[in-house]
Amino acid sequence: MPLLKCDIIEGRTDEEISSLLDATHEVVLKAFRVPEGDRYQIVNEHRPSRTRIEDTGLGIPRTGKNVILQVISRPRSIDDKQTFHRLLCEALSDKCDISASDVMVTFVENTDPIGHSETVRPSS
Amino acid sequence: MPLLKCDIIEGRTDEEISSLLDATHEVVLKAFRVPEGDRYQIVNEHRPSRTRIEDTGLGIPRTGKNVILQVISRPRSIDDKQTFHRLLCEALSDKCDISASDVMVTFVENTDPIGHSETVRPSS
Amino acid sequence: MPLLKCDIIEGRTDEEISSLLDATHEVVLKAFRVPEGDRYQIVNEHRPSRTRIEDTGLGIPRTGKNVILQVISRPRSIDDKQTFHRLLCEALSDKCDISASDVMVTFVENTDPIGHSETVRPSS
Repeated sequence: MPLLKCDIIEGRTDEEISSLLDATHEVVLKAFRVPEGDRYQIVNEHRPSRTRIEDTGLGIPRTGKNVILQVISRPRSIDDKQTFHRLLCEALSDKCDISASDVMVTFVENTDPIGHSETVRPSS
Repeated sequence: MPLLKCDIIEGRTDEEISSLLDATHEVVLKAFRVPEGDRYQIVNEHRPSRTRIEDTGLGIPRTGKNVILQVISRPRSIDDKQTFHRLLCEALSDKCDISASDVMVTFVENTDPIGHSETVRPSS
Repeated sequence: MPLLKCDIIEGRTDEEISSLLDATHEVVLKAFRVPEGDRYQIVNEHRPSRTRIEDTGLGIPRTGKNVILQVISRPRSIDDKQTFHRLLCEALSDKCDISASDVMVTFVENTDPIGHSETVRPSS
């Protein structure tokens, strides 16, 4: 159960958000090889005044289309994470007109395999 | 200082949210054996269109009563986490009419014991 | 790319929020020695009824000016985190009239060095 928390600036339409979530989920499926239904996504929209997104001094052009994605997941290999990031940038560019330079991804490890109630059993 | 971030779909009343937070806190107390006042909870409500919650392909029935709980805490044992999850499902079912199949929990480790200002001292 | 998620109670002005974010960023620069432009901050405002912030039973006075800051970052030393916390409490007190007793900080590790698209390259 990778849980994806997606922070964006307000102003996108429902269709644009659907497209963003669908494109992102396809990348989760490819990069992490999880079941189709392993989809847990939450979007938070923010007023511009409630975010500060700069460029680490690297001259990266940021626009109001910034996507800050937090992926909370069991540990994934560096390769899988790099693949995820590369495919995500490609997909958001192709399908959502979001430039790679507007995509920021943070991976955080879920420390435990229990992700939904069915997997939890009293320890014996 | 376990910090609990609780994502739900909008539409619950203040009373329902209070009940959810109270029930959850009682479980924190039991499972993690922290002081009564060790309570740090934040609720985020979302429009349905801003979430995608599926079932990992396991046929788990999800409803609009989904609770996605992120527990940010110092490391806890597997046993404690399993106990937490079990007690939470029981409590939300008993007190809030939320089915275990609508409860998703993610544990993330806080990497440091400093949780509030009083515990921080200049290193010597 | 430290990513800072800042949860506060609603009711602050834009200027107060700007001041809070600016003061916090100066502390990030000092404590973590990152480039000036390494600034990634998101503020979430909450109705009082959507939070429960107590005091761990320590008699810490909390007010509606609570700041709950989650710092998602590559691993930092205990010293750096303590310095961050100390400087943050000083800065928020000096510049934002926020008492140290209202400041709560949680550190979570980003598991990977890829923080923005430019750093991601296909593994070879």
